[in-house]
Amino acid sequence: ASIGRTGMSLRCQCIKTSSKFIHPKFMENIDIIPSGPHCENVEIIATLQSTNRVCLNPDSAWVKKIINRIISRSKKNDEDQ
Amino acid sequence: ASIGRTGMSLRCQCIKTSSKFIHPKFMENIDIIPSGPHCENVEIIATLQSTNRVCLNPDSAWVKKIINRIISRSKKNDEDQ
Repeated sequence: ASIGRTGMSLRCQCIKTSSKFIHPKFMENIDIIPSGPHCENVEIIATLQSTNRVCLNPDSAWVKKIINRIISRSKKNDEDQ
Repeated sequence: ASIGRTGMSLRCQCIKTSSKFIHPKFMENIDIIPSGPHCENVEIIATLQSTNRVCLNPDSAWVKKIINRIISRSKKNDEDQ
């Protein structure tokens, strides 16, 4: 295993990923871990309000859409609506 | 403070945000916390390889671009290139 990383993950954290849609209102946060020496896959891990953690499939179209919608919902945008 | 959340953040984690470009190769992971009862802002927190944590400005164009590029660099896309 690569030792280059600083205490973060030293290997892939996701054994399998889910493509099943999860409504963002159930998501506490979304962790995006870029691919790197520790793991050749980008990993997207959603922590749900039930504190369950779910590995999302980065290739699912809805995943990217949800992330972009969450980011675009910053306060400034809310005031414009 | 709202109690509805489950142990995660009970208030905003970012006092201020940075719009200064950070190359994704320095990023260990990116945490996206949707706005909610605990905080009216969406918060995007990058953990750097130096283990520093930086609050990124969700309204900066490069932030969204970098996140989409990281997500799109999944293994399947790498094999296609």
